[in-house]
This record gives sequence, C-alpha cells and structure tokens, in this order.
Amino acid sequence: MHFFSDNNASACPEALEALVSANGVTRGSYDGDELSARLDRVFGDFFGHDCRVFPVSTGTAANALALAAFIPPWGAVVCHEEAHIQVDEAGAPEFYTGGAKLILAEGEGAILTPETVEDSVAALRGDVHQVQAGALSLTQASEYGRVYSPDQVSALADFARGRGWKVHMDGARLANALVHLDCHPGDVTWRAGVDVLSFGFIKNGGISAEALVFFDTDLASTIPHRRKRAGQMPSKGRFAAAQLLAMIESGAWKRNAEAANAGARQLAAALGDRLMHPVEANEIFVRIGTGNAAKLRAQGFDFYDWGDAGSGEARLVVAWDTPPGDIQALARAIAALED
Amino acid sequence: MHFFSDNNASACPEALEALVSANGVTRGSYDGDELSARLDRVFGDFFGHDCRVFPVSTGTAANALALAAFIPPWGAVVCHEEAHIQVDEAGAPEFYTGGAKLILAEGEGAILTPETVEDSVAALRGDVHQVQAGALSLTQASEYGRVYSPDQVSALADFARGRGWKVHMDGARLANALVHLDCHPGDVTWRAGVDVLSFGFIKNGGISAEALVFFDTDLASTIPHRRKRAGQMPSKGRFAAAQLLAMIESGAWKRNAEAANAGARQLAAALGDRLMHPVEANEIFVRIGTGNAAKLRAQGFDFYDWGDAGSGEARLVVAWDTPPGDIQALARAIAALED
Amino acid sequence: MHFFSDNNASACPEALEALVSANGVTRGSYDGDELSARLDRVFGDFFGHDCRVFPVSTGTAANALALAAFIPPWGAVVCHEEAHIQVDEAGAPEFYTGGAKLILAEGEGAILTPETVEDSVAALRGDVHQVQAGALSLTQASEYGRVYSPDQVSALADFARGRGWKVHMDGARLANALVHLDCHPGDVTWRAGVDVLSFGFIKNGGISAEALVFFDTDLASTIPHRRKRAGQMPSKGRFAAAQLLAMIESGAWKRNAEAANAGARQLAAALGDRLMHPVEANEIFVRIGTGNAAKLRAQGFDFYDWGDAGSGEARLVVAWDTPPGDIQALARAIAALED
Amino acid sequence: MHFFSDNNASACPEALEALVSANGVTRGSYDGDELSARLDRVFGDFFGHDCRVFPVSTGTAANALALAAFIPPWGAVVCHEEAHIQVDEAGAPEFYTGGAKLILAEGEGAILTPETVEDSVAALRGDVHQVQAGALSLTQASEYGRVYSPDQVSALADFARGRGWKVHMDGARLANALVHLDCHPGDVTWRAGVDVLSFGFIKNGGISAEALVFFDTDLASTIPHRRKRAGQMPSKGRFAAAQLLAMIESGAWKRNAEAANAGARQLAAALGDRLMHPVEANEIFVRIGTGNAAKLRAQGFDFYDWGDAGSGEARLVVAWDTPPGDIQALARAIAALED
Repeated sequence: MHFFSDNNASACPEALEALVSANGVTRGSYDGDELSARLDRVFGDFFGHDCRVFPVSTGTAANALALAAFIPPWGAVVCHEEAHIQVDEAGAPEFYTGGAKLILAEGEGAILTPETVEDSVAALRGDVHQVQAGALSLTQASEYGRVYSPDQVSALADFARGRGWKVHMDGARLANALVHLDCHPGDVTWRAGVDVLSFGFIKNGGISAEALVFFDTDLASTIPHRRKRAGQMPSKGRFAAAQLLAMIESGAWKRNAEAANAGARQLAAALGDRLMHPVEANEIFVRIGTGNAAKLRAQGFDFYDWGDAGSGEARLVVAWDTPPGDIQALARAIAALED
Repeated sequence: MHFFSDNNASACPEALEALVSANGVTRGSYDGDELSARLDRVFGDFFGHDCRVFPVSTGTAANALALAAFIPPWGAVVCHEEAHIQVDEAGAPEFYTGGAKLILAEGEGAILTPETVEDSVAALRGDVHQVQAGALSLTQASEYGRVYSPDQVSALADFARGRGWKVHMDGARLANALVHLDCHPGDVTWRAGVDVLSFGFIKNGGISAEALVFFDTDLASTIPHRRKRAGQMPSKGRFAAAQLLAMIESGAWKRNAEAANAGARQLAAALGDRLMHPVEANEIFVRIGTGNAAKLRAQGFDFYDWGDAGSGEARLVVAWDTPPGDIQALARAIAALED
Repeated sequence: MHFFSDNNASACPEALEALVSANGVTRGSYDGDELSARLDRVFGDFFGHDCRVFPVSTGTAANALALAAFIPPWGAVVCHEEAHIQVDEAGAPEFYTGGAKLILAEGEGAILTPETVEDSVAALRGDVHQVQAGALSLTQASEYGRVYSPDQVSALADFARGRGWKVHMDGARLANALVHLDCHPGDVTWRAGVDVLSFGFIKNGGISAEALVFFDTDLASTIPHRRKRAGQMPSKGRFAAAQLLAMIESGAWKRNAEAANAGARQLAAALGDRLMHPVEANEIFVRIGTGNAAKLRAQGFDFYDWGDAGSGEARLVVAWDTPPGDIQALARAIAALED
Repeated sequence: MHFFSDNNASACPEALEALVSANGVTRGSYDGDELSARLDRVFGDFFGHDCRVFPVSTGTAANALALAAFIPPWGAVVCHEEAHIQVDEAGAPEFYTGGAKLILAEGEGAILTPETVEDSVAALRGDVHQVQAGALSLTQASEYGRVYSPDQVSALADFARGRGWKVHMDGARLANALVHLDCHPGDVTWRAGVDVLSFGFIKNGGISAEALVFFDTDLASTIPHRRKRAGQMPSKGRFAAAQLLAMIESGAWKRNAEAANAGARQLAAALGDRLMHPVEANEIFVRIGTGNAAKLRAQGFDFYDWGDAGSGEARLVVAWDTPPGDIQALARAIAALED
C-alpha cells in the first residue's frame, strides 16, 4: 500500500486517452502542432490572464528555467530553507542560471512570511561584492503540505515587488492548493502577484509533462532559447501538450486533487496529535517513532522516513488514485500503534 | 502529405500500448520501478555488451549529457561541420559541458574520415592556451542520410583512441542505419569503438523518450547527477522506460526503420540525378529548384527547404508511417517536374 | 587616519623593489621566466612540503579556483555562514565551479568546529537529488579576526577527511595567523590536513598577486587550464612571481604581519569590553554605537560599519603600515567616548 | 636575442615609476582610490568620447568580459578563424559568456571583410534551434600584424549593426595600429562603430593591467558584477590604474609603439619575399624553412615557430625595448640564409 510519493501514482484516464488520441490527429514537429498552439489560450482562459506556456519534462526543469528567465549568474533567489529547489533538485537552479545563489529563509510549515524573507536578506548589501537578490520563490502547496492563502501570497509578492524582485511559484501541487482554497486559479497566482508559475501535472495524474507558465509574458523572452538549449523542447511536443490540455479542459486536475486531498483529510483525522503540521493538501507529516515505522512497513505500508535518521518522523502522501481501502487500513493501523 | 520530418511521424502501436500498459502495473518514483530496472539488461542483451541506459526527453539532452560525461569545460569535441550538435541544438553541448568547444571537420555527405578529423585538429597545440580535444562525435545515419559502415566507424574510433579521445555516436537515426547495414547492433557501436551512444527512438515511432547508452559504464559515473540537475530525470520514469523497452523487445525499432528506409529507397528510385546524396537511410536530399518546390507544395506536399535561400534544394523525409500512396504520389509528381 | 581595510595599506618596499628589479633581469612570457620557475621550490621550502603555486590577481580568484579543482558543478562546499567566499565574492565560487553550492555552518567568531560542520550537513542525503558535499573551506584568520590553532584545523580536517572531503584554507590573512600562533607554516596548513591554500599577500603589503598553493599536487591537475581560461594567467608572470618570492624570502611576510598584529593588540587593549571578539590577528570588531561612530569619523578616523544598519558595530583594521601615532590617537579617542 | 613575443618585453619606465609613485599617495580599496576615479575621464579625453574603463589583469579577461556584456549563453560571436579569442584563450569567451559559440570567418592576414563575415553566417537561421549571432569581434592589429583602416572598421561595423550586432575590438596591439594609421584614437574605434574595446598595455610596456573600455556605456551595466565575480577586481586597484594612466598621459603608449613598429619595418626591409604578410605593426611572419630556423636559433635568436610542424614558418615580434643591435643582427643573419 503506497503512501511513499504521488510520483508513484498512476496516470489518470483523461491524460492517457488524450495522449493516445493525439496520435495521428495532428502533426508538426517540436511545437508546430495544433495542440501546442492551443496551450497559451487554454491556460489563459483557465487563469483569466494572458500567458505563455512551455511544456517541460520535469518540475525541476520548470523551476530552474523559470528562475533563469530573470536571475543573472550573480543574482540570488530567496526561498524557504527546505524548498524543493534548494534540497531536492541537485543544483538545477544553479545550473540553469549559470551559478546564482539561493538565499534561505525560515518559516513554520515551509511557509514564508514577509518577515522571514526580510530577515533572510537583512545583512545583504547592494554592492558589487555580493550577489543581488532578484526573486522570491514560494511553493504552493508548501513542502509540508501547507497552503498559502491569496492574502499571504499577496503580502509576499508586495514585499518582493517593493525590492524590485520577481515572484516565482513552484506549483508542483498547485492543484491540491487550489482545491483546498476553493478559489479561482488566478486568485492565488497572477492576481496575488505571481509572475511565473511551475504548474505541476505529473503528481496529480499526468504522465510526462509539466507546464511552465509566464503571466508576465515579457519575462519569457529568453525561454524558447533556454528551453531548447536545455534539451527541454520535445520533438513531438503534441504528446506533452495533449496531457496538459486534457487535464485542464476535462477538469481532471480538480477531480484528482479533490480525491487526494479528501484521502489525506481522512487519514489526518485518524492521526490526532501525531500530526506535525495541519493537513491542507495531500501530504501528511507525522511523528510515529522508529519502532512503529517498522511495524507499519511490516504490515505492507510504504512511506518515506522524514527528518534526521532516528527521528521517527514520516511523510505520508495520498495520491489521486490511492484506494480508499488502503487509506482506511493505514488509518486503522496507525490508531492501533502504541507511542 | 508529410515529408517534412520524421518528428512529424505518429507514435507506433507498440510504444503507445506499452505506455498505457505500464500504468498501474508498476510503481516507484523516478527510476525506482521495475521497468526502469530492466533497461540496462535489455539494452545489454540488444547490443551484446554491458551498458548503462538513461532515458532522457530529447536527443539534444542525450547528446549534450553524453559529451559532458567526459569533456571538461576547457575541452573540445570534434564533429562534422553540419553535425546536429553544432547546428541544431542551440548550444546544448556548450551548456551541459560548461563551455567546451566543438571543432568542425569536413566530409562529403556529413561523413567524417580520419583524414578530415586529423585536418580539423592539425593546428591545435597541446598547451594550456588552447582547448583540449577529448572526443569525436559522429552521427549515424549522418545529417545527409549516409550510413557509416562498421569499418568506417572503427577507423575513426582507432584514430580517436590514438589521441586519447572518447567516441560518441549521435544515433538519432541509428535504427535506420542498422537496417541499412543489416548488421548486429554491436557491430557498428561498441565493437567498432563507440563509448557512448545517443540512441534515438522518437523519430522512429517513439513518443517522448530517447536512450542515452554508455558502453563504457565507468564513463557514466557523473551522469545520474548531471541528469537530475538538468531536469532530465523524469518523476514517473516508468513511462519513459516502457516505450524504450517495448520498441526494443517487440522488434518495432527494426520494422519501423525498415518501412521508412524502404519508402525512401522507392522515392529515391524516382528521383534520378536530382539526388544530392546516395539514399541509405530515410532522408533524401534533392535539387528541384524553387519553382518546382512551389509546385509540389501546391499539390499538397510538405517538406523542408535545404541549403541557402534560393538554392532550390529540399530535404524529404520518409517516416515509419508515411503512407505508401503518399510516397507514390510524390514520386509521380517529381517525375512530372520540368527542370 | 585609515582603519577601513588592509586593502588600503601601501605596498611594502620588499615587494616594490622586487617588482622593479624583476624588470629586464628575466624574460619569458606567461610562466616561462626564471622567477615563476622558482615559485614551487621557494614555497615548498617555506611550508616544508612539495607544492604547486599559481599566482593569481585576487584572493577571490584564488579561492574560486581552489574550490573548482575538486568540486564538480553538483558538488558543495561547507563554509562558515559569514565566510568571505559566501558573502563577499559575488558568487565567484559558483562561477568557477559551474554552479556548486555553499553549505553554511555556524560558529562563534566565524570559527567552525566539527560539531557545527556536522550540523550543517546533518540533513543531507547521499542521493542524486541533492548536491554532494565535497570540501570544507575555513578562513585563517577568520572573518572576525580569530585564529584556528593547529589542533582546531586538524580536528576539522579529520572530520572532513572522514567524509571524503578535501580541505581548503582561505588564508587571506594567513600571515597574521602564523605570527599569532608562532608556529611553523606547515603546522597549521598541510600538517593539519589542508589540501589547498589561498595564501594572501596583498593585504599584508603586496601589490597585485596572491598565491594559490596546492599541497596535494595531484589536485592541481586542472588548474593550469582553469586559470588560463579565467584570464588569471598573467602574460608577464614574472612581475607577479617577483612580489611573492620577495615577501617570502625577505621575511617581509612576517615582519608586516607582526607590525599589524601588534598595532591591533595595542588598540584592543584600549577597547575593553567594547570588543566583540578576542583580537588575535589584525582585525578588531567593536560596539561603539552610531553616535560614537559619527564622532570618531568627525575626528578623522575612517572605518567600516559592521552588522545591520544602526547596530553601532564597527570593524577596525590595522595594516602593516598603519602609523603608530594613528593607533594611539584612535585608542585615546575611543577611551574618551561615552557609552 | 628575443623575438619570441612582446610579452617578453620589459616594463617601460613610465609604467614602473607610476606604480611606485602610486604607493602611499592614494588609498582606497578596490576602485575606491583617486587614480581609479580618474580612469573614465582620462580615457574619455584620449578617445574623445564618454567611456567606462575597467582594469583587468589579462587581455583574455578583457576580451571575455567584453563579450559577456552582451552575448547570452545561447549567443554567438563572429571572429576570424585565427582570432586570439578562438585559438589562444583556452575557451575564456565560452567561460565568461556561459557557453556562447564563436563563429569563424575567413580573411587574408586575419583581416575580416563584410563579405567573409557574411559568408560565415549565411547558413544560420534565426530559429530557436540555433545559436544567435550577436557580435562581431575584430583584432587590431590583426593576428598577422595587419592593420584595419578606419574605413575597413566602419564597413564591418555597418554590416554588424545592420544585423543588430555589437562590435568588439581586441586591441591587444591597438597602440601599434594607431601609430601605423597615424590617426586619432577615436577614428578607428568609436567613430568607426566599435562599442567595446580591449585596450592592451602589457605587450606595449605595461606591467600587469589591461583596460576594458566601453564606448557604449550602457553596455557596461553588468560588468562590475561580472568582473568582481571573475576575481578581476583588484583589491588595490590603484596599482592597476596607475600604470594605465601613466602610459596614456605620458605618451609612452605612442613612443613605445613607434619604437616597436620602426624596428619591425627595419627587419621587414631585410626580409624581402620571405614575408608572408605586409608588416604594418610589430609582428613579422616569414618563411625561412626548418633548417634555417635551426641555424638562427644556433646564433642566439629566439622566436616562435608558426604554422604546422615542419612548415618552416616563423613569427618574429619586435617589442618596444628590442635593442636596435639585435634587430640589425637578425636582419643580417636572415640576409645570409640560403633558401
């Protein structure tokens, strides 16, 4: 029973069928097909704002390309100290930007605030001996499954803009956040001040494509070059576009996220004070102890150890397709654990 | 009627069905699934040699990662002056290597010889003021649809090895070359001295994955890091592995290439002395004149203008799924052209 | 009266005369002269260990080249959170390494300990999703004018070596540290486990050259290429070598550092509990308050504001040539300050 | 007797005295001294145009920084196939630009023409699959000692500007060219369309500093960051500035170049039809045969073999301080050679 990662989840029927259906219907190499041609408009309608959309093969590529769009090699990006771009992308932002730095800010639940961001740059001078901060990157939902409200994003974006920075959102689980917020997709993105978004599809039922979305379309001017040069411009772009379009247009993005979030809430309800963070999306962080972790594994539950070795912390992820029976089984198994 | 590019070709049933079938059968994020785990063995059996296989999303990424494995930033790669890595990858080799140079050699039909390679480096000194050549990259089939024989590859690899260089093969159309040569896949790769291969699947009926294959597995030691860092490690790697495995194990790689090559031969037979190069794979280069090009387009034929503007040269590509009727129609239409 | 930086100090007579004397005596472009040829031996004698020495134009270049020698683009270097390589080199380590990360450790007085280093990497996993720590960089004397003892360096180097890391010492003020320790130059460098050293001369009376010194000479194999490529291989290398040789062979390195340290001690004695850190080299950090800072400036004293705006902290640097009268005047002026 | 390179030349008295005199007269770390503050104005007066001047430690750094100012990583620079930036800088332009390409054009005597430049880019498409040419770099005097006239530079710059490119001049031997042309320094630089200049001093009698000069000062906006990050911002900048100012203000730049050019002309007169190129600056390229080369060396003449091994070609360089007697001796020795 899989609670290890939503990367383990299967592809949803809408994405798979769209990919299969794309075959033969349209041709055109690279982005020269009818599906790729529809991306900007469909995402523009979805968000209620003009946008430029670039399919890429991974969230890491989306994030790194996004930042490279406006951060020079001597620039810097402020992010949470546990942000995916800092701890799980093997230095991709540094590779794509040509060596820019990440400046690490704190925040409970991996949620930044203007205060923690300000603290992170307080000692920075503006002189030529230091790197120059030029962007804020926030993750929605956060690395601990917390969700920024539109007001929280606006406050951060206002702070960033006051410094002349751009705002990037790593939306690997944006769908889960949108469902939690029950708001218009624009409310927590461009309306709240986000300039560029890595919009995740793969964890939410997609196959092999993520969307890099520029709301500030001028910022995208170098992306076609950077994307090609990074080997991120697929030669049969229609198969990437098909997945993205299908998940947006069919509403699968929402149904899948609702299913995952609902499963996570159900599990959270059984976890009581073992919970390390409120559960707002589809990730759950719990303290169970190393002995209990071994017991759960012995019962067939697969999950990720969190924190330092021996911390007894664990991450449980509910995916769009996690069987309800598995969730109930895990809830019961945890309830039966001793401390 | 499409003769523009084999990137326009549809995905073959074997690849599509494998991708669909992979859903739900195996889990495991990144490369942690059963299909990804089979790659090294299946390709090893195919080539008759131990190998390390890394799926990536484009041929550009495969080529650039391959070269970065052994070329330092102050290194250089010798390739044909019209090699894809030089003229069609937007500087990806430079990006992935951290700024190495390509040294351009000549050769009729984009086929290198030891002599042209030697000429390209004759003026190079070994001192610290110059970049240091460290690899030879050859394209099989070549950018003009020519195929290197095993002996030709061996002669080049011997030359390279005598200089202490590694040998890379850009096999975007390796399947077409193998079918033309009717040889064992190992004969024109590792047995002929190739260390690392970009093995193309997408043009030959694949969907979204190419294979980077190291025959010298020690050379691959940095690739897991480089691949992740480049955003080329897919989070659901099983969908990439499934395509590659299916096309190898079902023999689709061969059937598809045979179909494309046969179509190209048929077309070539109708082209007579308009042919610019012998047709050995699935690409055809012809002199038709600008007026004739317009006439053919008016009849519904789509293809790529070649050479300088106004040269009247064209590239025709036959894909695995090009309808025989389209090929016959084009053959007839060309036969009817005036000079 | 200048207490702003030892970069403001004049060049010492030994360095200047050596540069003038080098003119005409030897020829040879780049490193092909007799003075450059002596560097390895003279520094080898100085340290009591084989070494490879590369003159470069700045300490920033020395540090960044040193790290690039063994840290790949996906690697990381552990250093103090206020290390010069982190806060004052505009991202040079990232530039020269091709995008490696710095991992920031804590430590009172900018002095690292095995414990703080261990804390900084405790959360790092060894997997491909993360950068891989490969070096420890420590600054001698530290950014707060503290000096590592040979035992302290050994303990850190042992820790590093246990992880398979290399050890870099940023010795921008190594001479001041050596004088404070009154030990053999080898004791706190290679004997204590340092692999590569940025040996600073300019702040200590030099003109335009610093020395990059490899004790592990195998590690230097790529440096000639990297140095040339960075524009750090001077075309008249003899003028750089002359300065370095003269300051070592004449003992000026020691006399100058002794003078600076003595002046700093004298000043420290007058500062009482305003001192933020023990004074072991030639930098002094004091709490004086913003009002007092203005008063001192009005009396003609020039120095650097430290810490956050309004902190009332200051850095005072005594150079090899700071006039004793200036030091006495500043000591008196500070003694006369109110809190 | 040295004819190997003008890098072997000694430093001229004006530069040395200025460096010595700078000591103690002014303070200020990095560029914060009075001499550095005068650079823009003094060079502005020299050229008759506003400019921004950055001392750097090598010509390689000047060239690479200049190009990085306006060429993105996916950009390209057109230069002669034997340009110093292509064949003698170990990939520095690629390092500083983050991986841009050099596009190689032909031209007798290493002199480009609009026609050869056009040929070099004729096959380039403007699409995202290719690098984008963005600059022309020409060397004055050329790598074969030829000098571009103002009209020749204008014609090239007009061509470049018509394509939207910037124009860089590698003026490692600009002084020699100016003396040959007997024109105002502005005539062959900004008035002829040059945007940025690497102005060489070291070969012409300087010590350790070259000048990077932007006539289009807007283009220099990123240079302070790039220069610091490259370790090219000296901590005692006054010693670099002093040399540059002295050689300009004293007229040494001109006297030295006149001496070198005159010596080269004298030697050329003795060489007759052995000359491979007209002698317009201070470099002479001759066909002497390998046997004769050995004979000359046996007589104590030091010079550089040119061309392929066994070509019997040689480069002779006359420096500002080459003794007239040495020149006469070499002239006589060559006159006495048999073919």
